[in-house]
Amino acid sequence: MIGIFGSGIGGLTVVRAIMERIPGYDIKYFGDTGRSHCWSSSPETVIEYAVSDMTFLIENGAKLIIMACNTASSVESDIVEKFEIPVFEVVTPAVELALESSRKKAIGVIGTRATVKSGIYEKKIKDLNSGARVYSVASPLLVPLIEEGWIDRPETAMIVKKYLHPLKTRQIDTLILGCTHYPLIKHVIQRKIGKRVNIIDSSTGVAEKVEKFLKEHPDIDCLLSKNGQSRIFVSDVTDQLAKTARLILRKNVILEQVKI
Amino acid sequence: MIGIFGSGIGGLTVVRAIMERIPGYDIKYFGDTGRSHCWSSSPETVIEYAVSDMTFLIENGAKLIIMACNTASSVESDIVEKFEIPVFEVVTPAVELALESSRKKAIGVIGTRATVKSGIYEKKIKDLNSGARVYSVASPLLVPLIEEGWIDRPETAMIVKKYLHPLKTRQIDTLILGCTHYPLIKHVIQRKIGKRVNIIDSSTGVAEKVEKFLKEHPDIDCLLSKNGQSRIFVSDVTDQLAKTARLILRKNVILEQVKI
Repeated sequence: MIGIFGSGIGGLTVVRAIMERIPGYDIKYFGDTGRSHCWSSSPETVIEYAVSDMTFLIENGAKLIIMACNTASSVESDIVEKFEIPVFEVVTPAVELALESSRKKAIGVIGTRATVKSGIYEKKIKDLNSGARVYSVASPLLVPLIEEGWIDRPETAMIVKKYLHPLKTRQIDTLILGCTHYPLIKHVIQRKIGKRVNIIDSSTGVAEKVEKFLKEHPDIDCLLSKNGQSRIFVSDVTDQLAKTARLILRKNVILEQVKI
Repeated sequence: MIGIFGSGIGGLTVVRAIMERIPGYDIKYFGDTGRSHCWSSSPETVIEYAVSDMTFLIENGAKLIIMACNTASSVESDIVEKFEIPVFEVVTPAVELALESSRKKAIGVIGTRATVKSGIYEKKIKDLNSGARVYSVASPLLVPLIEEGWIDRPETAMIVKKYLHPLKTRQIDTLILGCTHYPLIKHVIQRKIGKRVNIIDSSTGVAEKVEKFLKEHPDIDCLLSKNGQSRIFVSDVTDQLAKTARLILRKNVILEQVKI
């Protein structure tokens, strides 16, 4: 089956995108909710956690893995070499979609402090188009707000507005949501950045990429079971996480707690 | 010297209280900023981290230790037995001050999710006064807001108001700040809870307790050097942390990064 993992519950936005784009494929998701906050510690920690999470998925039958986490994606090259199965990350597809979408090549990026500090988006955008202008803003309060379920509260809208202010003055025409949690407040972000800015949600990009890859690699595709089943594993569970998971997948889900 | 540690930079409020209450004592502080978010993981993790942080302080000459962290204090009994020097925690002194202050014995507590979940304040208050009413509210967004330096922003005031709402309806007359970060926004909390509610800041309580202990134990007191020197060690340093440290201690400080 397809294995997907993220530092928390936000990576379920990628699960949803895969379910919508290529329905029927069996999916196992692992959300490292017990250590989600520690993922911002250091690249070494991120690599260690990502490798342990991916090993769990492979031991449970994954034949293809998606890193549904921007922080893990930012150190992808150090991780992929340790595994022999296809591994996808969320940054490159988002960058490609953003460059396609942006007429002025003026692109904004919002993400966690770790992702913005890594400079991964600037690097990948400039690699593909050295003339593009990229403006990144760390938005460290958005993940705690989303995890608390404060989706439609005025406080969240105010904080989003404050974070987006420097991007508004830069006249960007495209905004990348550089964190898998953010699609949950996409409507708030769209309202505050203005409707003329095209928002790129990294979950959509990676789903397209996986679909294309499977069409071109029937040998891998035939290894993936297709009974339309999905299971969600987490390293810690709370009522709020279960609620957020339901909100993302728009259905009742069981979070199965496992020790990593 | 006196060793003080906390899960992050918030524990410096205890350093300040000690400097004000018993000036002249040499202090080494260790703030586990590199792992601060991980402290909410599980009691086992908290014990492991606290023991490693205390070992660092003892190896660096501490003869008395203060746990400037409510999360560590909540598992204090499991930690203290591993050490042979006096160890102080912040919960008990705050509880004693709160019970002295509260006429109606209706006490509110705000803290992180881990501290509130541990039930340590309820337990200690009820142990001393079984008739007291205790109302606890987890306020998980306050630490990220304070660490971001959003002290006097309207967003913070709005979020504080929302958290305090259930306590206002309970007619408490005393509110314990059950997290060493919170004294930084005490003025905001006082404004929102109302001036008739007495706010207990756990850093003040523990400083009084240590002063009293040293008067009663001159044998320990004479082990503590008194050159008015303080050093601040952290496991990770950012510009924002350095700014917050200056804000708490009201002077220029150097954060020395160490590996634990």
